[in-house]
Amino acid sequence: MASAFLTNCWYVAAWPEDITRTPLRRVFLDQPVVLFRLQDGTAVALADSCPHRFVPLSRGQLVGDEIECCYHGLRFDAAGACTLNPHGDGTIPRTAKVRAYDLVERHGMVWIWMGDAAADPARIPEIAIPNFPALGERDKYGAVAGVLHIAANFQLITDNLLDLSHAQYLHPGLRVANAQRMRHEMRHEGNEIFSDFWRDNGEPNGLMRLLGWPVGVNGDSRANMHWYPPSLLVLDVGATGVGRPVHEGVIAPSLHMLTPETEKSTHYFFAFLRLVGLEDAALQEKVRALGMQAFAMEDKPVIEAQQAQLGDTEIMSLGPTLLSPDAAGVRARRVLQSLLAAEAKAAS
Amino acid sequence: MASAFLTNCWYVAAWPEDITRTPLRRVFLDQPVVLFRLQDGTAVALADSCPHRFVPLSRGQLVGDEIECCYHGLRFDAAGACTLNPHGDGTIPRTAKVRAYDLVERHGMVWIWMGDAAADPARIPEIAIPNFPALGERDKYGAVAGVLHIAANFQLITDNLLDLSHAQYLHPGLRVANAQRMRHEMRHEGNEIFSDFWRDNGEPNGLMRLLGWPVGVNGDSRANMHWYPPSLLVLDVGATGVGRPVHEGVIAPSLHMLTPETEKSTHYFFAFLRLVGLEDAALQEKVRALGMQAFAMEDKPVIEAQQAQLGDTEIMSLGPTLLSPDAAGVRARRVLQSLLAAEAKAAS
Amino acid sequence: MASAFLTNCWYVAAWPEDITRTPLRRVFLDQPVVLFRLQDGTAVALADSCPHRFVPLSRGQLVGDEIECCYHGLRFDAAGACTLNPHGDGTIPRTAKVRAYDLVERHGMVWIWMGDAAADPARIPEIAIPNFPALGERDKYGAVAGVLHIAANFQLITDNLLDLSHAQYLHPGLRVANAQRMRHEMRHEGNEIFSDFWRDNGEPNGLMRLLGWPVGVNGDSRANMHWYPPSLLVLDVGATGVGRPVHEGVIAPSLHMLTPETEKSTHYFFAFLRLVGLEDAALQEKVRALGMQAFAMEDKPVIEAQQAQLGDTEIMSLGPTLLSPDAAGVRARRVLQSLLAAEAKAAS
Repeated sequence: MASAFLTNCWYVAAWPEDITRTPLRRVFLDQPVVLFRLQDGTAVALADSCPHRFVPLSRGQLVGDEIECCYHGLRFDAAGACTLNPHGDGTIPRTAKVRAYDLVERHGMVWIWMGDAAADPARIPEIAIPNFPALGERDKYGAVAGVLHIAANFQLITDNLLDLSHAQYLHPGLRVANAQRMRHEMRHEGNEIFSDFWRDNGEPNGLMRLLGWPVGVNGDSRANMHWYPPSLLVLDVGATGVGRPVHEGVIAPSLHMLTPETEKSTHYFFAFLRLVGLEDAALQEKVRALGMQAFAMEDKPVIEAQQAQLGDTEIMSLGPTLLSPDAAGVRARRVLQSLLAAEAKAAS
Repeated sequence: MASAFLTNCWYVAAWPEDITRTPLRRVFLDQPVVLFRLQDGTAVALADSCPHRFVPLSRGQLVGDEIECCYHGLRFDAAGACTLNPHGDGTIPRTAKVRAYDLVERHGMVWIWMGDAAADPARIPEIAIPNFPALGERDKYGAVAGVLHIAANFQLITDNLLDLSHAQYLHPGLRVANAQRMRHEMRHEGNEIFSDFWRDNGEPNGLMRLLGWPVGVNGDSRANMHWYPPSLLVLDVGATGVGRPVHEGVIAPSLHMLTPETEKSTHYFFAFLRLVGLEDAALQEKVRALGMQAFAMEDKPVIEAQQAQLGDTEIMSLGPTLLSPDAAGVRARRVLQSLLAAEAKAAS
Repeated sequence: MASAFLTNCWYVAAWPEDITRTPLRRVFLDQPVVLFRLQDGTAVALADSCPHRFVPLSRGQLVGDEIECCYHGLRFDAAGACTLNPHGDGTIPRTAKVRAYDLVERHGMVWIWMGDAAADPARIPEIAIPNFPALGERDKYGAVAGVLHIAANFQLITDNLLDLSHAQYLHPGLRVANAQRMRHEMRHEGNEIFSDFWRDNGEPNGLMRLLGWPVGVNGDSRANMHWYPPSLLVLDVGATGVGRPVHEGVIAPSLHMLTPETEKSTHYFFAFLRLVGLEDAALQEKVRALGMQAFAMEDKPVIEAQQAQLGDTEIMSLGPTLLSPDAAGVRARRVLQSLLAAEAKAAS
């Protein structure tokens, strides 16, 4: 596999509801994976390539707790071992096995470990969302969740998320009328990065109004991003009365979890959470529409145009102009480089 | 041309009815060819590239027995010689010629010789179909014939055909209810390979029933494939009463003739033959539907997914798991390798 | 940039009406350019890539005389200088600039200079159209103008235009009934080439009839092409009474201006001009239909098929058969080679 991806770490593979008794193919880090559930509900991930003729196993069907290749009927269990060879004398060839990837369900997502080192569940990030209850029961928090396919390297999306100043230009629905200068603070703790945008005493944006902030009333707004390497981002968005503490007012965090598909494409898992109007189906639909407008209609085409313009060229090699809010993105790249170097060193 | 194809041999270029007075472009072994008929019905194949501006001649029109380039009006006869230069003083430039490929109509198909060695019609395989009259009057045998374009190397299709055990998994319409263990016999005679599947005393499959086998009655079934290098396969399919000789009962052979287009695409010429219900249009349609379901809807997507997964990698270099019915496919690859080596040696 | 294009010369970038207050992206010589107009109507061309994140500026909007990047709001003026950084303390980074390309409006077209040498407006060709008033007020001459995208190298289009003998084969609407042998004269003056087709005492073609030539009456026709390197062609088409001078009769010149997009695609700017029926909307539509039939429906697919057949191979390396009317195209390639060599030498 290309050295472009950190492999010995956890990536989000799916929302729990994506994985069913119908095999699902997804490519992660250039490797095809088939995802399905056992009869007891356990999620399983196997290499999506039968070792016999290299047909995707995902084209086959589940038989009990095993997946049967559609082409010649070999069956594999959750550990990737071949359990049935219906041909000849039925002997199972020594090479008839596929890799099983470690999967863990935590925080309301399904995580996968793609690397060769031993998978350690303790390394799944804690995802403590500021001012918000613990995750795990996503449904309780009116989550609008999904996954977008973006035809761009995951780092171009990281750049986008670590510099939310772009919302003022790219997202009319989130723009504020009387644009005041925001305060941007970047800091890091170990390998984690915080990129915080504060906007005191102004009228909060459309999302805050959707969640109950009264029109025409000023407040203190924030959009504080927390990046965990390599590509997990937690956003604390909210608005309070002027000068009031952040656990008050409107609180609308979101999760942004990027799993590379290839060097030029990414699975972008997202969830918008809230504490109000949890039974309100119309509000749910409005939150979804606002998010999809921003993500799918505004961010996605621009990031894909950026990737198309870059082609095979790495963005930093072009010597881009750097603006002050780029500090977080630049630092994230540096952290990633050093983690990649450490991983390469450990492998050799 | 790539050394991936045997060239000094006959390939099927078309069904006779495909070649008309309207020029037809087909690419064989990476070489573009234009096919058309002279006024007396003789089929002609020329390189499909005018030597003047390299526009496909197939975009032009026939004028009597010559093909006229659409761009500047050069005309070429059946031997590929330029016969008219309508420009300047009309002198025919020495370089104004295109290659004419040898074509032979035999066994109800049109065969082409792509190689540089002299084309020898005696080398067209005999195609003796067991338990069946000689070919040549395909219409008499209710043939359902056609050509499929498959986005895969021809050897992946050969593998498919030499191991018909896949029918039980991939083709529900041909599956047998109480799957008994089939007997598989592989043998070879010179460079030809026989891959025979026998199934004694069981209920024959859906194709046999379509052709008159009574429901609920057991019989002896067979599906015996005969491979001629590089890519011609004749299949003797039938069912008889238990213990009865193979010239009795239902006989439904088929032809499978693979002509490489490129390293990753193939023209798959097929014909399903039968001896019963030859005047029955509804039966004809049912045989066509059964064949198309299996070929176009079931085999084609799986073989193309296999090619997509392999990309530029040769399948054997991946060390595939081999099962007992792969013996024939593996041997066919070995025969082909030795023929390719012999052809390369003869050329040097 | 590839050495395949002459860069220190003027190319047509657009018709004046193509450039508006809505930014327009076009790629010239593999370089993306954004075209727009200032409030006073001045046309501007900038590199279509923001130096910050390399998003196309053409996705942004005009704010007064500046273009604002859609992503983070940097603004650039007509000289490519960044005028606003809305982030941090607002300092404009030294690297925040984009290349501004020289644009000149002349002869009713907008010309761009893509090279590194100083742009000299005096080097825009004069475009004196024989037997026709000076250009510049295209509207006065019933111009049917437009731009076609051709998926082929510009030299394949030059070949097409320098050898109009193809009209007799490729363009039924321009074919003459009793094809007499045309006279072809090729000559050059410095780096300019003239490829003249004369046809005395014959019935003129469909375009002449459309513009008033009486049916069934013979005349002297001409189609005289004038090539300016690298890819500007002016065609004097007309018909006069037999033996009469060329400033009489029907005069219908046209302009053919090729601007490379990539090595395998070209912007083909064209204009058909005339002196009669200038107020006749139905005639205007008929001229457009005749031109589009020939260009878009007949030339374009053949030239694109030629490029597809050639792939990455340069046509002359294949040793094409040369016919007498190819003399002009061959000479044009030779002129271009020597200009490219001179440009390369000057650059080193």
